[in-house]
Amino acid sequence: AGIDLNCDLGESFGAYTLGRDAEILPFVTSANIACGFHAGDPSVMQRTVKLALEAGVAIGAHPGLPDLAGFGRRNLDVSAGEVYAMTMYQIGALNAFVRAEGGTLKHVKPHGALYNMAAARADLAEAIAEAVYRVNPALTLFGLAKSELTRAAERIGLRAAHEAFADRGYRADGSLIKRGLPGALIADAGTAAKRVVRLALEGRVSTPDGEDIELRADTICLHGDGEHALAFARHIVEACQAAGVAVKPFE
Amino acid sequence: AGIDLNCDLGESFGAYTLGRDAEILPFVTSANIACGFHAGDPSVMQRTVKLALEAGVAIGAHPGLPDLAGFGRRNLDVSAGEVYAMTMYQIGALNAFVRAEGGTLKHVKPHGALYNMAAARADLAEAIAEAVYRVNPALTLFGLAKSELTRAAERIGLRAAHEAFADRGYRADGSLIKRGLPGALIADAGTAAKRVVRLALEGRVSTPDGEDIELRADTICLHGDGEHALAFARHIVEACQAAGVAVKPFE
Amino acid sequence: AGIDLNCDLGESFGAYTLGRDAEILPFVTSANIACGFHAGDPSVMQRTVKLALEAGVAIGAHPGLPDLAGFGRRNLDVSAGEVYAMTMYQIGALNAFVRAEGGTLKHVKPHGALYNMAAARADLAEAIAEAVYRVNPALTLFGLAKSELTRAAERIGLRAAHEAFADRGYRADGSLIKRGLPGALIADAGTAAKRVVRLALEGRVSTPDGEDIELRADTICLHGDGEHALAFARHIVEACQAAGVAVKPFE
Amino acid sequence: AGIDLNCDLGESFGAYTLGRDAEILPFVTSANIACGFHAGDPSVMQRTVKLALEAGVAIGAHPGLPDLAGFGRRNLDVSAGEVYAMTMYQIGALNAFVRAEGGTLKHVKPHGALYNMAAARADLAEAIAEAVYRVNPALTLFGLAKSELTRAAERIGLRAAHEAFADRGYRADGSLIKRGLPGALIADAGTAAKRVVRLALEGRVSTPDGEDIELRADTICLHGDGEHALAFARHIVEACQAAGVAVKPFE
Repeated sequence: AGIDLNCDLGESFGAYTLGRDAEILPFVTSANIACGFHAGDPSVMQRTVKLALEAGVAIGAHPGLPDLAGFGRRNLDVSAGEVYAMTMYQIGALNAFVRAEGGTLKHVKPHGALYNMAAARADLAEAIAEAVYRVNPALTLFGLAKSELTRAAERIGLRAAHEAFADRGYRADGSLIKRGLPGALIADAGTAAKRVVRLALEGRVSTPDGEDIELRADTICLHGDGEHALAFARHIVEACQAAGVAVKPFE
Repeated sequence: AGIDLNCDLGESFGAYTLGRDAEILPFVTSANIACGFHAGDPSVMQRTVKLALEAGVAIGAHPGLPDLAGFGRRNLDVSAGEVYAMTMYQIGALNAFVRAEGGTLKHVKPHGALYNMAAARADLAEAIAEAVYRVNPALTLFGLAKSELTRAAERIGLRAAHEAFADRGYRADGSLIKRGLPGALIADAGTAAKRVVRLALEGRVSTPDGEDIELRADTICLHGDGEHALAFARHIVEACQAAGVAVKPFE
Repeated sequence: AGIDLNCDLGESFGAYTLGRDAEILPFVTSANIACGFHAGDPSVMQRTVKLALEAGVAIGAHPGLPDLAGFGRRNLDVSAGEVYAMTMYQIGALNAFVRAEGGTLKHVKPHGALYNMAAARADLAEAIAEAVYRVNPALTLFGLAKSELTRAAERIGLRAAHEAFADRGYRADGSLIKRGLPGALIADAGTAAKRVVRLALEGRVSTPDGEDIELRADTICLHGDGEHALAFARHIVEACQAAGVAVKPFE
Repeated sequence: AGIDLNCDLGESFGAYTLGRDAEILPFVTSANIACGFHAGDPSVMQRTVKLALEAGVAIGAHPGLPDLAGFGRRNLDVSAGEVYAMTMYQIGALNAFVRAEGGTLKHVKPHGALYNMAAARADLAEAIAEAVYRVNPALTLFGLAKSELTRAAERIGLRAAHEAFADRGYRADGSLIKRGLPGALIADAGTAAKRVVRLALEGRVSTPDGEDIELRADTICLHGDGEHALAFARHIVEACQAAGVAVKPFE
């Protein structure tokens, strides 16, 4: 059994530094690099692509809503046509840096509100899937497990990586418990690590209500910001290795 | 003999319309499409790429400074590293649309202040040439005739298209007469058209002082905004046809 | 009886021109001037304030969402705290130009999606009302008639101008018929003008279903873009004058 | 004798944190708060104004060039008219927050490239001075000592605060030694503190060449970022107190 560990990188902007890219990279097998809309700028993108290539991780584009002030986390009422175009634009921009440095773009993972909107709305999910497909049908599209986004990817003929969260609680229907509600966050790194191992080996996770549900997890979302995030990442990687779960890019 | 006629297109943004793209396209053989920094947005880019492909013109990226409020016309003190990254980013973004629509990107022409700065400064010219070369060494780089930009292109191994202006006066050293000075602008469409024909056939142009200078002109810059611009374009195309000058993309 | 006619002005940006400000101004008694978030820039604001003062109309701030690409028309999931701060910021910026030119800011009207969101959500309406009140309790807040926004204004102690639309159809409950549905738009300028006169004299308007409803209309929204809009404005002003309805700023 | 110590604050933006505002505030008597162009956003401005008022420091607007990606540090070829309008806009925006919180705006200090350009060019300096004057002639304009900016302020009738730098070396003509050249930076906090005391008491500073020059210093620029900056600030405040130099806002 194997699992991919992905992380958002390249979220600095101009004079502003965000994230501890160099420190989290050793624990990561797929890097989602911001493309200048919700975070990142051309110089940061160039630097981050180099860093990711040196670390030998798989590189993906991480397109977001055009909302730097909100870090791409605020829903914006964009049309499917706008989503297609903004996704195409951002993938193209990142892809240029990846190719210029001698690498190959492997995947696309939408960011923040775009990710959440595409998980719930088929039209936006299809717009993203079509943009990805048109850039290159060999790209993998990362999306919330069993969401509209992974469905749209599979429908159009893309490989979909179903994503699960090590630090988030799930409801019986497989959806995430909303932040702020009890059970939404897994605070303990050891617990999180065990959940990841079980997802990789059995494809199952338990809910706060004591149910045990099936959950496909091709890739696990790690965070790249703060001491806490680094500790989580270390625990997860070590637990996987101890359990014989190969940590490697999704294929 | 032949000559290329290029024009900036896709300079609308959101609710704002600029230029008369559909009307100028029949007179143009190369379209420079804005890439979202000084003008254009992803949806406009998608639309403009389709329009240019339908018109059968050669498509180029038209990267600019990140200054929408100033339309990319104000010099900004960017480093060569920043210029490299912003050029790479914008070419990549436009290229994605061109490929998604089944076309092939042919050239790159920097916009406004970036064009002027790169004409004068070798370090910025080299940064642009390197970005273009790394995206694809088969791309042509458009720049002011005999400028640092065309020199940098040739040095790195790119084909350079030396650009001349139908509506601008030249000094004896081949540089443009500054706007605002006597002789800076050619107001009469017929005169402009004759100059273009002579540039194509003889590679020469006369100065206001009565000198006659050599000027390489692979491509002529047309404007896409206003009645005046359309009349100029029509005169130039008709004069070329009458004189047996083939109007076609630079190769 | 009297009525105020308001219009959005100053929506140009940099090299982009939008609206026919100078032509619509003679028909208008209140100008809502864009503040640089959804449209407008500092130079446009300065110019528009001067133009409005010369025309002798009442000047208002027209704050919008930070979404130039979407012209402030796309809902954005902003918090009440963010709405308070962005409203305060934009009013302050416009107010500086008004005072510098010797004028007095009279009102505030939110733009587009911010207007619509504040019409429906009490928390956002209160955030706007509080920002307006804290800048100056003597300001009038323009909002959709009988909406959360006018209610919030009245609750905090501001004068609220209830706004009606000359070119929009109403449902029996006083809400606007959604664009795209039958009866949503009043296409005929004469009909629109008669509706305005009746709103001013009787405070009543008829619905497509033949009902006749009460609708408070302190101010009527005119549009400033296109031949059509100018014709509408002319018809409305002439019909008001013919019917003895004074066209004047709301007080 | 007395001296003002000013510091740039409120330079965070959205999800991005920059500077250690709460930690530097105890050492500062004047706060220059970013206004959303080179840094800061409306929510950050509101928060920073409250923080500064609680700390009891004098509040100033810190307008910059519209270049978030470059943090306002890259020269941009703006016209005097544009500088007037962007300065007016930013002061107005900040002033609204200050007044809403019950405070009074005391000064304006341009940021980064705008500061440097205005120090050298009379037309830009006059544009800034005029904007400040028109907002309120009682405001103080902070500028590089003996520069075009302080001259323009004095010419128009504003109080000018001549600014000196504790951590920068000076040439015999009173200009700053360019960064990167020997003597440009004073690395030792004790040395810097001694220079501040001498500037306050004698209005004199020594150059690397051993000359001793006159330099008016109404206010000293402190930095708010990093351990080093905090140590410098502490040294300077303690040295002033030990020498009987009152640390207080410029009046």
